[in-house]
Amino acid sequence: MHDQAIGAWLDALASSAPAPGGGAAAALSAAIGAALIEMVCNLTIGRPRYAAHDALMREALARATTLRHRALALAAADARAFGAVTDAYRLPRDTAEQARARAERIQVALIGATEVPLQTAALAGEVVQLAGRIADGANVNALADVAAAAASARAALETALVNVEANLAALPDRSRGGELRERSTGVATLVAEAERTIRRIRGKVGT
Amino acid sequence: MHDQAIGAWLDALASSAPAPGGGAAAALSAAIGAALIEMVCNLTIGRPRYAAHDALMREALARATTLRHRALALAAADARAFGAVTDAYRLPRDTAEQARARAERIQVALIGATEVPLQTAALAGEVVQLAGRIADGANVNALADVAAAAASARAALETALVNVEANLAALPDRSRGGELRERSTGVATLVAEAERTIRRIRGKVGT
Repeated sequence: MHDQAIGAWLDALASSAPAPGGGAAAALSAAIGAALIEMVCNLTIGRPRYAAHDALMREALARATTLRHRALALAAADARAFGAVTDAYRLPRDTAEQARARAERIQVALIGATEVPLQTAALAGEVVQLAGRIADGANVNALADVAAAAASARAALETALVNVEANLAALPDRSRGGELRERSTGVATLVAEAERTIRRIRGKVGT
Repeated sequence: MHDQAIGAWLDALASSAPAPGGGAAAALSAAIGAALIEMVCNLTIGRPRYAAHDALMREALARATTLRHRALALAAADARAFGAVTDAYRLPRDTAEQARARAERIQVALIGATEVPLQTAALAGEVVQLAGRIADGANVNALADVAAAAASARAALETALVNVEANLAALPDRSRGGELRERSTGVATLVAEAERTIRRIRGKVGT
């Protein structure tokens, strides 16, 4: 994904090919959010007017860079995990024995595939929190970009969570998704936090 | 942007370079949303189970493709318009005459630069509406991607709108942004519509 041209990647996303899909879109949205955090930090660091926030901005910059690169890695992990799911669905189910084996493979693959969007959601939640942390000390000319970072990260968060929900709903044995469902519920509280952060930052723009 | 590698584009977004910035991020988010609509249509068209929705899906596919390409063109337009703004800010203001001329150039450039995110916001609003229209007839295995499309488009919409607000607030003569402000208020109603659409689609996932 790192080396792929934007136009070609969007063409692939738009196609019916199994990957890239929603998981990769979530990861890219998270990466866009992280990059916007970095941009704001870069526009703030070293300016005398914002000297009091210099340490915070440097710390946020380093963290956002790490998150951005990790987001792209998650997009690749999502494609691999989703490949295992589609492989499992393609297994034969002509006999009761085959159907049982296939359901078990689907179960295992879906649980593995749910791990990736859960991590993407957590990462996106952290980008939203970074936006909230830098909002007060950011270069005022870049405040709109702090809001933009939070909006992108929220889209990543929601996209990842809806993928988690779809995977859990598709489990052949739904009784065995408990731990994932709990983690999903935990991550979902980040959506409300994102909402509050975005509203607070937007309130600062243009004032 | 079309031919640029994703990693290099994100590097440029993260830098303090004037472009790409929030406007290009909004355009890419809108393009991701449109591509996800296309993917869902491509996963639905031609399947006997969804034959009743075939015409709608084909129409939505064609429209989403148009919107995706237009979104990337808006990213380029945003960079040009923003360049005119930064050029205007760099004009000398040593004399009252120069200061007046500079303020006028900033005013004109900012008004021009506000046109682009207004168009991006309208485009993103249309992607949200497309998501709402295809939600009932889409391949049920791709419903999470319909929600993802709406979430990406909403991020584009919010990012574009906050850029409009920041531009209008920066106008040297704020009394002359009336028409743009009215259009911005009109587009802002799309955010609430996006919110309702996303909630409705998410309610369908995993049921």
